[in-house]
Amino acid sequence: MIPDGFSTAYATNYRWFKGDEAIWDDFLVGMVKTHSANTEVTDSAAAGTAFATGVKTNNGMISVRPDGTPLQTILEASKKAGKATGLVATSTITHATPAVFASHVASRANEADIAPQMLERVDVLLGGGKQYFLPQSEGGQQEKRNLITEAKNKGYQYVETRDQLHAAKGRKLLGLFAHDAMAAELDRKHTNEPSLAEMTAKAIKTLNQNKKGFFLMVEGSQIDWAGHAHDAAWAMRDIQAFEEAVEVAIDFAKKDGKTLVVIVGDHDTGGMSVGGYGQYDAKLEVLREVSATGNYMAAQLDKDRQNVKEVVKKYTGIELTDEEAKVIQSAKQPANAINEIISQRALVGWSSSAHTGVDVQLYAFGPHANQFAGLIDNTDVPKIMAKAMKIELKN
Amino acid sequence: MIPDGFSTAYATNYRWFKGDEAIWDDFLVGMVKTHSANTEVTDSAAAGTAFATGVKTNNGMISVRPDGTPLQTILEASKKAGKATGLVATSTITHATPAVFASHVASRANEADIAPQMLERVDVLLGGGKQYFLPQSEGGQQEKRNLITEAKNKGYQYVETRDQLHAAKGRKLLGLFAHDAMAAELDRKHTNEPSLAEMTAKAIKTLNQNKKGFFLMVEGSQIDWAGHAHDAAWAMRDIQAFEEAVEVAIDFAKKDGKTLVVIVGDHDTGGMSVGGYGQYDAKLEVLREVSATGNYMAAQLDKDRQNVKEVVKKYTGIELTDEEAKVIQSAKQPANAINEIISQRALVGWSSSAHTGVDVQLYAFGPHANQFAGLIDNTDVPKIMAKAMKIELKN
Repeated sequence: MIPDGFSTAYATNYRWFKGDEAIWDDFLVGMVKTHSANTEVTDSAAAGTAFATGVKTNNGMISVRPDGTPLQTILEASKKAGKATGLVATSTITHATPAVFASHVASRANEADIAPQMLERVDVLLGGGKQYFLPQSEGGQQEKRNLITEAKNKGYQYVETRDQLHAAKGRKLLGLFAHDAMAAELDRKHTNEPSLAEMTAKAIKTLNQNKKGFFLMVEGSQIDWAGHAHDAAWAMRDIQAFEEAVEVAIDFAKKDGKTLVVIVGDHDTGGMSVGGYGQYDAKLEVLREVSATGNYMAAQLDKDRQNVKEVVKKYTGIELTDEEAKVIQSAKQPANAINEIISQRALVGWSSSAHTGVDVQLYAFGPHANQFAGLIDNTDVPKIMAKAMKIELKN
Repeated sequence: MIPDGFSTAYATNYRWFKGDEAIWDDFLVGMVKTHSANTEVTDSAAAGTAFATGVKTNNGMISVRPDGTPLQTILEASKKAGKATGLVATSTITHATPAVFASHVASRANEADIAPQMLERVDVLLGGGKQYFLPQSEGGQQEKRNLITEAKNKGYQYVETRDQLHAAKGRKLLGLFAHDAMAAELDRKHTNEPSLAEMTAKAIKTLNQNKKGFFLMVEGSQIDWAGHAHDAAWAMRDIQAFEEAVEVAIDFAKKDGKTLVVIVGDHDTGGMSVGGYGQYDAKLEVLREVSATGNYMAAQLDKDRQNVKEVVKKYTGIELTDEEAKVIQSAKQPANAINEIISQRALVGWSSSAHTGVDVQLYAFGPHANQFAGLIDNTDVPKIMAKAMKIELKN
């Protein structure tokens, strides 16, 4: 289970936001080095490749070596061993982190090339990105192919709403709940999309029909996007949605007794800090009152952004000063300006719009959980998992 | 052993700076929550009080409860059990982090009130802060007392240079190597001061004469100060000096076989990040060429700061642009301006001039090291240590 962009600062801030420990706080076992083959600061493609294959590659590459040679993934090794396989994400299901487990491409941008590979080896695919399974107007090796039709012909049940997901049966399931990415958890109420926890529950139930067990990757995809945008409330609510998915998995693992659950972020995003701005304080409670993302609020602004005070008040409870209102009105990216003001009020600090390279914490529950103890490399993660699963990962 | 201000970002950056793992990377066992009784973002007094007593207090308070009641410290409990006791720091020895182990005052600022308490219960005191042991011109309860004379009368050997430290013998030792704080490791070559590793070695040798064992706290005090100043090179070199001290302690513990070594920062300082400024990169090698602190460089500037390019080139190897030179020339604090430029070149990010509240990593070696596993509270640290030492900590 990968909370994309989730570092220790996110974990600490989330505890204050929640007002309690998170479920994973009981399961901390170690920390993970995150750098990629070519830089100290990884992207999600290289970090995911390390998690999926046990080999470091360059930023941007999807389960191929820096020279382009394909690498076996732990999902592929699981399938080879007769296990069921699944991928769940709130991004497009062809986005870097899910992609690394079931495809091999030189560039993460080629999502249309990733989609057909997924249908060859994954039993349960749940997320966004319907566009990449439909005939493309240009480019992509399957530009003429309708992968949804092909999936149905291969025995997948296809769903695209929350209700359809709940009703689905069978052993193979393709759920594409949005044309592009799914909604941020804060904005999901405006959609028919299932939650990450609902997708996780259905994936586990479906995959667990296989007597030989299963490999499932669940990604809280948008914690990272929130970090890039410095949208602290989006981050906290997507962590909360991820925690609910982890609860589903841990509950299953507790009953099952044979399932290893590993929870680990792939890198930090934004250089988030707990406190900031020179103050010895943090006010995460400010974020509990925020009911929309900065992007959603920006979309509610009128042409001259004259309603900025009303919009921000409605969705955050914050009374903007005249100066703050002017900053948002004149900003190139009003969503970013709103996010910065909310972060300042909540005392959530940021040092970058990109990822950072700090070691991240790893949590594990179930058989062999203690094998992840200490400071390990991100390439160690699938190796330890493969040993625990008694499967062979050849790279 | 407390590297003040040392969070995971410092550990990760230091690994890149060093080009290798640090000695503690083999000993990571858990992480620690750092908040104080009154805020999410602790200062060193409250964080140190938690480490020393197992009780949270308010920022600024030295081993007293928020209501002012004194708390027993693990150093005092060790002394009560017949063990020898020691404190080593590169700050004034009366600064917050050493102070919490051997004194009780409502405000960390009262260093002159802390000094006489230390002589009542600590066998080895090595650090800076001679001024607080001499008769004070005003204020402080010992304003007429000369504590150095008193210490000698109590059987302490008194030293104030590196050579005197090496030559010292006996079971009680007071070493005050600077009027105020000792030098930053980068600038120590201009002084007669011992290194942190040399003080640690002497402290262990002296304390180990006690057959019942000893309690020793060693602080890398100035990692925190470097963080406040955003002086990344100062931070890295003071971490290096701290690592050398840890090597001394681990070497002793390996031979001894009965000694527990715990290495844990008290909080993050500055919201440091690995990378920053929107880039997927970090260039810690830039800091290897820096041979002075920003403070030292600023002191070398002439009256109109016309020699800024020469000074920065001499001590960093960096050729400033005209724009960078102007920023330093017009800065209110030229040292800070120099530090920000070096941090930008090294891609070390910062989000605050104060501390931040992120959980910090804990390393342990020796008997009972695994008792610190998982996510614990800073107040758990002395409780686990007391159990390992078979002493009673009553609070």
